[in-house]
Amino acid sequence: MLLIKVNKNSPTPVFQQIYLQIKSLIETGVLKVGDKLPSSRLLSEKLKVNRTTVYRAYEELWSFGYIESRPGSYSFVRQRAQLAIETKIAEEDQINWAQRANPNITSLLASCDHFNNSNTKPGIINFLPLSPDPSQMPAETFRKYLNKATLLHGVDLLSYNNVKGYDPLRAFIKERMAFHGIRTTLDNILITNGTQNSLELFLKYVAVAGLKIIVEAPTYSAVIPLFEMYGAILLEVPITKKGIDLKILEHLLKNNEVAFLFTMPNFQNPTGITSTQAHREKLLELCKTYNTPIIEDGFEEEMKYFGKSVMPVKSMDNSGLVIYLGTFSKTLFPGLRLGWMVGNTDLINSLIQIKQITEISSNFLIQAAVYEFCQTGNYELHVKRLHRIYRKRMNTALKAAEKYLPKDKCFFTKPSGGYTFWINLANNRNNENETVKQFEKNGVAVTPGKLFYVKQKKEASFRLSIAHLSENQIEEGLRKIGIIIEKLN
Amino acid sequence: MLLIKVNKNSPTPVFQQIYLQIKSLIETGVLKVGDKLPSSRLLSEKLKVNRTTVYRAYEELWSFGYIESRPGSYSFVRQRAQLAIETKIAEEDQINWAQRANPNITSLLASCDHFNNSNTKPGIINFLPLSPDPSQMPAETFRKYLNKATLLHGVDLLSYNNVKGYDPLRAFIKERMAFHGIRTTLDNILITNGTQNSLELFLKYVAVAGLKIIVEAPTYSAVIPLFEMYGAILLEVPITKKGIDLKILEHLLKNNEVAFLFTMPNFQNPTGITSTQAHREKLLELCKTYNTPIIEDGFEEEMKYFGKSVMPVKSMDNSGLVIYLGTFSKTLFPGLRLGWMVGNTDLINSLIQIKQITEISSNFLIQAAVYEFCQTGNYELHVKRLHRIYRKRMNTALKAAEKYLPKDKCFFTKPSGGYTFWINLANNRNNENETVKQFEKNGVAVTPGKLFYVKQKKEASFRLSIAHLSENQIEEGLRKIGIIIEKLN
Repeated sequence: MLLIKVNKNSPTPVFQQIYLQIKSLIETGVLKVGDKLPSSRLLSEKLKVNRTTVYRAYEELWSFGYIESRPGSYSFVRQRAQLAIETKIAEEDQINWAQRANPNITSLLASCDHFNNSNTKPGIINFLPLSPDPSQMPAETFRKYLNKATLLHGVDLLSYNNVKGYDPLRAFIKERMAFHGIRTTLDNILITNGTQNSLELFLKYVAVAGLKIIVEAPTYSAVIPLFEMYGAILLEVPITKKGIDLKILEHLLKNNEVAFLFTMPNFQNPTGITSTQAHREKLLELCKTYNTPIIEDGFEEEMKYFGKSVMPVKSMDNSGLVIYLGTFSKTLFPGLRLGWMVGNTDLINSLIQIKQITEISSNFLIQAAVYEFCQTGNYELHVKRLHRIYRKRMNTALKAAEKYLPKDKCFFTKPSGGYTFWINLANNRNNENETVKQFEKNGVAVTPGKLFYVKQKKEASFRLSIAHLSENQIEEGLRKIGIIIEKLN
Repeated sequence: MLLIKVNKNSPTPVFQQIYLQIKSLIETGVLKVGDKLPSSRLLSEKLKVNRTTVYRAYEELWSFGYIESRPGSYSFVRQRAQLAIETKIAEEDQINWAQRANPNITSLLASCDHFNNSNTKPGIINFLPLSPDPSQMPAETFRKYLNKATLLHGVDLLSYNNVKGYDPLRAFIKERMAFHGIRTTLDNILITNGTQNSLELFLKYVAVAGLKIIVEAPTYSAVIPLFEMYGAILLEVPITKKGIDLKILEHLLKNNEVAFLFTMPNFQNPTGITSTQAHREKLLELCKTYNTPIIEDGFEEEMKYFGKSVMPVKSMDNSGLVIYLGTFSKTLFPGLRLGWMVGNTDLINSLIQIKQITEISSNFLIQAAVYEFCQTGNYELHVKRLHRIYRKRMNTALKAAEKYLPKDKCFFTKPSGGYTFWINLANNRNNENETVKQFEKNGVAVTPGKLFYVKQKKEASFRLSIAHLSENQIEEGLRKIGIIIEKLN
């Protein structure tokens, strides 16, 4: 029997006294690998302690790898080998990972060590986050449908599943696409882990070293490092009030072999600009002429508040040149990582293969829950609710901008939907960083414009997202911004 | 008012009659973009039909993009532009995607168009699937914890979240790693979307064209196309009963600059072989000598049924050379896509950056649900339950193999855990495909060995997974396999 003593008056809990003594017996070799420990019943009787106390000590030994359980519920001393922690680890003996990395990757990582963080100090009016207002997220309703889906199909959703995605959700997306004028079949739809994943699947298919990609300037900041990770050279085309500058675009298409154009025709991120239907027709025509594919990011397709509907470029595409990207991140929950892409069947089939190689299987649980949520009409109701809320917020923002921003010192966009708008200072001498700091000192956080450009630019500019703000906060925030801009040179 | 008539005696449902007539009025230009439709109340009174009938017709028009709703609940004719579907699409006008793809990728995709499909016809004894038995999956318990997590933290889990992973789950994994002798801190742990995702993050960091990777022969089939996608040259080292052949490994390490070794020391996929502690020590020593990193895939670390415990290679690593991969796919649910990696902090930090660039955010909902499930002790209970079940199944398999498989015509492995074992035919003249077909004709499905090799090999071999089979099925399946092997030359 083990030589263990316990002192019930000690400040060390009894279970820990037992744990420490057995640990020491193992470490000093008194107990050897394979030795059987007394049963918890026996030891508790011997030590006159509660059986759960012994049990807790054994649990502790077990969780630190000293013992193991075998059939019959006995515990044995376990082989622990030379654990790394037990030998002192010298810094200089450690592998230097950066030296082994792909140098292109290390330089990319070094260049983007500051990520778009949308948190601010409390009390600041926060124009940063581009995601639905948490207070408007239908989390409680979603919980019910998540529960329903798991109850209905538990094991089926939790096993390895078809990487294409959950068919009922694909069918729902097909209908939703039809609503936006994109007629398609299930074979044209691939469900992905969000827009970034959609883009990456496509890049894996087409990227070769030095591929040229045309982006809008400014463009969605998160695509810049992703495209660069795939070895891309990014060509910027300025965005005008009507959409991407078609003259400059044509010039670039004429003089370069371009892999594809990445565009956000609706409520462009960051500017909030929406191109007209006529502009879209010309854009498609131009890309057809130069045989250049278009990635159309419809991230806020659903979020139109004012004015005439405009149809996606994809709705006019009869050559398969356009790949449309959709997402649930800006209407439902960004944390779900759920998006989709629409393209010709041959392309989608290749992307499915790539997804299979890199991801094996698809998370059906989330997809089935979103389907259950959507198919009962909740999605339309929820989108309509968002419209009511954000129509007011955007209206407030536009009126406040009109009222408070000095027109001789800046211009601003007038979005007909989405979450963001854009302020550009008129005078080149104003420093963007300095101005952002001044805003913050006065209680307002905005995203500096430079994050959305590949090359450096002259004028200071800022993205403002109204997503998480009340109408009062929006008004107050723009008032403060107006005062600071007024004081600039 | 619209000129619409309905015939209640027609075989066409009334709602569809209304839908078709309004659609026709829009298409013929009688109704123009922006025209307001009568309210459903008004139209239903006029037509003397139920209001929900009109509502359904409007829904139909809406879902096909003919009308839109605006504030005040009126419906308007919508801009549909030239929809692609309305012009006949000629095959020859379609973009040829394969021509635009990276040629390395298209040839890779062409070479792996048959994916490991684990479904069979009903009635077949199915030795294919390498995933937990659906009948043993704790789906109902998991549902409760999923619901609990969503109830507790709904909106927080559903928003954009830290790409590193959910801290409480990382803490649980840290403890679990300690149980297996791997002492680590939270900063060494990154939660991923499963092992394939872990591998890909690492490849993105280190891969350069033509990097050399050593794999076991046979190895996990799904890593072959993944490694090749990143431009790797795969060097195969045969696996012996004790683990990877250390002599051949040393020869390769001496003569090549190797980016890393990929190994599965426990219940290796496909063979089920577990290397000894002494073998692991030598392996680590060898890789230290040649300064070659090791990716240790611990996919079935938890699934030890017989014999002495063996500690992971990572538990002995004091130089940071080993990257350990874990997963919940073989104990809980493969459909969750949830795994983790353990490595030095500098490496993990770089991989977090790469994950941020490619995935933006992490699915906290799944991670929180798994955490809630695990932290109450369910995980240990569940693993113990799996042990009881699979200890019996593996025992049955080993006894049946001993009894039915002719030893002069084949050899087979004797796994001490996991789901799979391996049969190798002794005579080189037997055709693998032919034999697999014969098995299937006699009611047994097994995975052909060639899927697990990079280069062609001489002998026919087969992977058998007992994961989804009862003891009776395992016995009966091996009896049938024995009869067929007996008849071979």
